[in-house]
Amino acid sequence: MKIIPLADRVVIKTVEVEETTKGGLILTGSAKEKPQVAEVIAVGPGGIVDGKEVKMTVKVGDKVLTSKYSGTEVKVDGEECTIVRQGDILAVVED
Amino acid sequence: MKIIPLADRVVIKTVEVEETTKGGLILTGSAKEKPQVAEVIAVGPGGIVDGKEVKMTVKVGDKVLTSKYSGTEVKVDGEECTIVRQGDILAVVED
Amino acid sequence: MKIIPLADRVVIKTVEVEETTKGGLILTGSAKEKPQVAEVIAVGPGGIVDGKEVKMTVKVGDKVLTSKYSGTEVKVDGEECTIVRQGDILAVVED
Amino acid sequence: MKIIPLADRVVIKTVEVEETTKGGLILTGSAKEKPQVAEVIAVGPGGIVDGKEVKMTVKVGDKVLTSKYSGTEVKVDGEECTIVRQGDILAVVED
Amino acid sequence: MKIIPLADRVVIKTVEVEETTKGGLILTGSAKEKPQVAEVIAVGPGGIVDGKEVKMTVKVGDKVLTSKYSGTEVKVDGEECTIVRQGDILAVVED
Amino acid sequence: MKIIPLADRVVIKTVEVEETTKGGLILTGSAKEKPQVAEVIAVGPGGIVDGKEVKMTVKVGDKVLTSKYSGTEVKVDGEECTIVRQGDILAVVED
Amino acid sequence: MKIIPLADRVVIKTVEVEETTKGGLILTGSAKEKPQVAEVIAVGPGGIVDGKEVKMTVKVGDKVLTSKYSGTEVKVDGEECTIVRQGDILAVVED
Repeated sequence: MKIIPLADRVVIKTVEVEETTKGGLILTGSAKEKPQVAEVIAVGPGGIVDGKEVKMTVKVGDKVLTSKYSGTEVKVDGEECTIVRQGDILAVVED
Repeated sequence: MKIIPLADRVVIKTVEVEETTKGGLILTGSAKEKPQVAEVIAVGPGGIVDGKEVKMTVKVGDKVLTSKYSGTEVKVDGEECTIVRQGDILAVVED
Repeated sequence: MKIIPLADRVVIKTVEVEETTKGGLILTGSAKEKPQVAEVIAVGPGGIVDGKEVKMTVKVGDKVLTSKYSGTEVKVDGEECTIVRQGDILAVVED
Repeated sequence: MKIIPLADRVVIKTVEVEETTKGGLILTGSAKEKPQVAEVIAVGPGGIVDGKEVKMTVKVGDKVLTSKYSGTEVKVDGEECTIVRQGDILAVVED
Repeated sequence: MKIIPLADRVVIKTVEVEETTKGGLILTGSAKEKPQVAEVIAVGPGGIVDGKEVKMTVKVGDKVLTSKYSGTEVKVDGEECTIVRQGDILAVVED
Repeated sequence: MKIIPLADRVVIKTVEVEETTKGGLILTGSAKEKPQVAEVIAVGPGGIVDGKEVKMTVKVGDKVLTSKYSGTEVKVDGEECTIVRQGDILAVVED
Repeated sequence: MKIIPLADRVVIKTVEVEETTKGGLILTGSAKEKPQVAEVIAVGPGGIVDGKEVKMTVKVGDKVLTSKYSGTEVKVDGEECTIVRQGDILAVVED
């Protein structure tokens, strides 16, 4: 089963917090907006979204930082994923 | 009886959750925004919507993910349907 | 007496729910937004509305689906009508 | 004394409800937005309003339908008037 | 001391209500938005405001109608004035 | 230490209220939006702000009127300053 | 580990308040919006953000003033950082 996001949406899979901590990134933040590291597993085509041209800049395999409460959670083949808009991705993380 | 959606609207028919689970997709999510799998049964013409050009990218027969609380529910010939705007469709699901 | 709607407004007359049910359409939905079938009895000229070009796509005699709580109700010559904006019309229904 | 409305504003004078009823129009509606028949007594020049071109389509003497709670009430030479934006006028009524 | 309003702002001085009543204008209205007659004492240059071209159409000496609760009150050389945006001026009043 | 405001921001320093009163300006207003006189001590470059061209029209040394609750307060070398957007400045005051 | 901010985002590292005070800058302000001095450690590429061209004007190493409650906090290799949009940066501070 495959999820193909529409427009400027991106499917991401949360990376385990423990694994992240080893790499040096520990997430803090208020209860209101808690960021998290996730891996990009599918990227929408971009194009005209709400009448504005959106160019997709993240790619499959990127590790990204998003707000924990952004997007919509789904489970695909047993894996928890989240569908977010690219604009809700704060940064790409490199090792 | 036939429903012809206007503008960027799409008529979708919820797919049974049990059937979906077999294919590997189990839906989770907060009570606030619960996604669901649905099949597209009619697609509006797109065009200028709120002053912006909208191109329809979903087609009849597509399996799509939407928020459960998006759109307006109707029953056509005994079948429960929902009318959503294309922008409320998160992703297309392929087997 | 005649009502000539301005801009992108449309005058619609609610179709009896019983009559609709015969044709196979039974309306469901949350208390928040209950759709209904109505017949178009007058259509505004469209044109520039809020700075955006609006082209009228519904026509007199069309059966349409709208949210029950859209628009403003008036009674013309004893008939209950509603004035809605075309953008609040979800779909056209054909027998 | 004369009121000259600015921009896309229109000065209207409420028509007596009894007189209206004779012509066949009885107004209903929720307490939230009650429409009323009024006569246009002055029309602003239109032009660029909030950065958008507005063309005035109503004219002095027109009978119009507006929401009762639109606009600002003033009394001119003993007559109650209301200043509304043209976009708050729902329809023109003809006998 | 002189106040030079910026952008699309206008400095107005409330005209005594008693004086107004003689001329035939009595102000009514809900507690929420009470209109008042005022005299324009300074006019901003207009130009690009929030990215939109604004042309000033009121001039010093005009009697104008505004909502009582629009703008910011200041006292200049003992006189109470109000700074409003031109878009909050409903109409010009002529005797 | 020097503060260089970004975009359409302006650094202002509140002028003593007592001094202002001598010049004939006494400030009144609701608790909600209390205007105040301030001196401009730094001006941002303007340019494209939120996608719109902003031209700076105030300059260092200008006495300006703003809402008391606009902007963000900072203390620079013992002096209380406020950083506001130029659009929050109501007027320039001249003696 | 490296954080590469997307779009118009900037990664900043809060500068110790004690150190700042020595330089002459003491921060005040309401509990609602408390500004703080931070050092820029990474800058996004800018470009089209929400359909509008954004040019990045801050650079790595700049000391900037932001609202304390802007942005999302993360910890990178033991250092607390915050990801903000460039538009939330009020000013650059120079010694």
